Amino acid sequence: MQINPPYLMFLGDVPDQLAAKTAAGIVDWRRDWCIGQLRLPGCKADLGIADMSIADAAKAGTRTMIVGVANAGGVLPDHWVRTIVEALDAGFDVASGLHTRLGSKAEIADAARRNGRQLFDVRHSDMRFDTGKGDKRPGMRLLTVGTDCSAGKKYTALALEKAMRDRGFDADFRATGQTGIFISGRGVAIDAVVADFISGAVEWISPAADANHWDLIEGQGSLFHPSFAGVSLGLLHGAQPDAFVVCHEPTRTTMRGVKTPLPTIRQVIDLTIATGTLTNPAIRPVGIAVNTQALGEDEARAYLAQVSREHDLPATDPIRFGVDVIVDRIAADYPQTVRAKAAS
Amino acid sequence: MQINPPYLMFLGDVPDQLAAKTAAGIVDWRRDWCIGQLRLPGCKADLGIADMSIADAAKAGTRTMIVGVANAGGVLPDHWVRTIVEALDAGFDVASGLHTRLGSKAEIADAARRNGRQLFDVRHSDMRFDTGKGDKRPGMRLLTVGTDCSAGKKYTALALEKAMRDRGFDADFRATGQTGIFISGRGVAIDAVVADFISGAVEWISPAADANHWDLIEGQGSLFHPSFAGVSLGLLHGAQPDAFVVCHEPTRTTMRGVKTPLPTIRQVIDLTIATGTLTNPAIRPVGIAVNTQALGEDEARAYLAQVSREHDLPATDPIRFGVDVIVDRIAADYPQTVRAKAAS
Repeated sequence: MQINPPYLMFLGDVPDQLAAKTAAGIVDWRRDWCIGQLRLPGCKADLGIADMSIADAAKAGTRTMIVGVANAGGVLPDHWVRTIVEALDAGFDVASGLHTRLGSKAEIADAARRNGRQLFDVRHSDMRFDTGKGDKRPGMRLLTVGTDCSAGKKYTALALEKAMRDRGFDADFRATGQTGIFISGRGVAIDAVVADFISGAVEWISPAADANHWDLIEGQGSLFHPSFAGVSLGLLHGAQPDAFVVCHEPTRTTMRGVKTPLPTIRQVIDLTIATGTLTNPAIRPVGIAVNTQALGEDEARAYLAQVSREHDLPATDPIRFGVDVIVDRIAADYPQTVRAKAAS
Repeated sequence: MQINPPYLMFLGDVPDQLAAKTAAGIVDWRRDWCIGQLRLPGCKADLGIADMSIADAAKAGTRTMIVGVANAGGVLPDHWVRTIVEALDAGFDVASGLHTRLGSKAEIADAARRNGRQLFDVRHSDMRFDTGKGDKRPGMRLLTVGTDCSAGKKYTALALEKAMRDRGFDADFRATGQTGIFISGRGVAIDAVVADFISGAVEWISPAADANHWDLIEGQGSLFHPSFAGVSLGLLHGAQPDAFVVCHEPTRTTMRGVKTPLPTIRQVIDLTIATGTLTNPAIRPVGIAVNTQALGEDEARAYLAQVSREHDLPATDPIRFGVDVIVDRIAADYPQTVRAKAAS
């Protein structure tokens, strides 16, 4: 699955900004891929980019229209179908993060066929994968793991991609969730894969690469989350990371959606090493990424200093303070990978 | 999904006995559910039970015809369709372990609709599950885990069901794979579930029960298998077992289908406790089940004695020596659950 930019961002008529969270994430990380936004009357979300008709977006070179909004239940309202058909008739592919498959609407399926265009439903996985092999693949890999779901794993991997590229590393973000797939144009929603193929799908997402190339793989869930730990372990084994960053939100006491207490950062480090060793005995932590949103600035700095001391690892809030301290550690621990881009 | 016995076993015209392995397993464990076998000309498998026509099987009270054979690729040959349609016309449900879905053949789908009969494809999972909750459910649970795939987890759970029922325990086998589903008439092929719902599906398979009732849950894969560990961990968290039995095949050096070395029994015990604690802090091992097929009898007894001493646990080969020593340990460790059946 390769979703081709540039994108026209379709927002439908969603009732608030939160419903366009995925679309906003795409604009944050790939501003230059986003040609404009298309909003229907009554839309209450705004990405802060130019409003455009299908015709204008076509002239500007759009290749894919992204349905990057989530309404209640993830269904595709009937009154959005006409715009999606128009996009296909204009020669765009269409990619959606909704639960409803685009092709389940006959008019959309017909228009895609008629125009020879592709429909992407990134929340579903119809690809066939092999089962994981566990063989070591060339290339360096970093995985973001978490004490919980929604603890900043995608953001941290994307921030590392940007900072490492700026420093001359040859580094690519690898998506395992829907927003990440739109942002990188490829990837697999790993939680939608049939259970037998979790690690095999990740081996496909992060294939063999140059020895000094870094794949920065978006983690999912937590090894300690009673709903999703299976996904997290299959992802870890398939990713076979050399390095990992632990993502943490310090004010939570229970894990998302369940009554299970949050594990400690130490527990996550220990179990990630204990289980990750199976497919990469060299696995080790290189940093801690904390979402300090709930803390004042002084409090946040004090907390990060303490966490850093406790684990002998750089600790930062990627949004507030950037990820340079983690990149410094990667540069120090894996010097042969610095400036791999310039050299290759 | 509830597959109703008694069964007519359909063997098609498979070329050897191995292709009827699933069907033979059903006859082994549920002889009284199997009314007869139906073989097409050229069939080289034989379950050792009466050959029967559809009409005779109907008279004898058959409720479901089981397609319990595996041919190359798991496809359903066109020349089997007529017999399956006849079974539906005779009022049987039909359950299949093939990859090809029964309903993908129009004649079969039509016949099921026409007769108001059910089609079961046990290798696929179309059920919707909730995500796992991790909440402790009433009732006792035992999970069979393994140092590898195909190490006797299903056999051990079934042998425990039989031995524990004979001793007055209130105990039910819970299936997580296709043969087990036919044997128990219900269950979910856990490796076919969408990754997000592994533990949730197991919570459904083994629901809340009487405090002294045992669910004996069929394990899958291994926490140390690079292809399937995610499935095994989700299964462990959903099963929230009080007790587990480690299944092992002592002559293997690498895990099935991959180059990864076999873990030790100790490693499996330690990681099962370390991760299983998340949903049941009381988790502990109660026995070791070894497939000693490759060893002579004296060698097998010596090996089991050594493994038993090393881990301070009863060790047996369930096929060769039965599982009484493990049931003894369960009776000693959980005395309140003995004779739960007589009492209830």
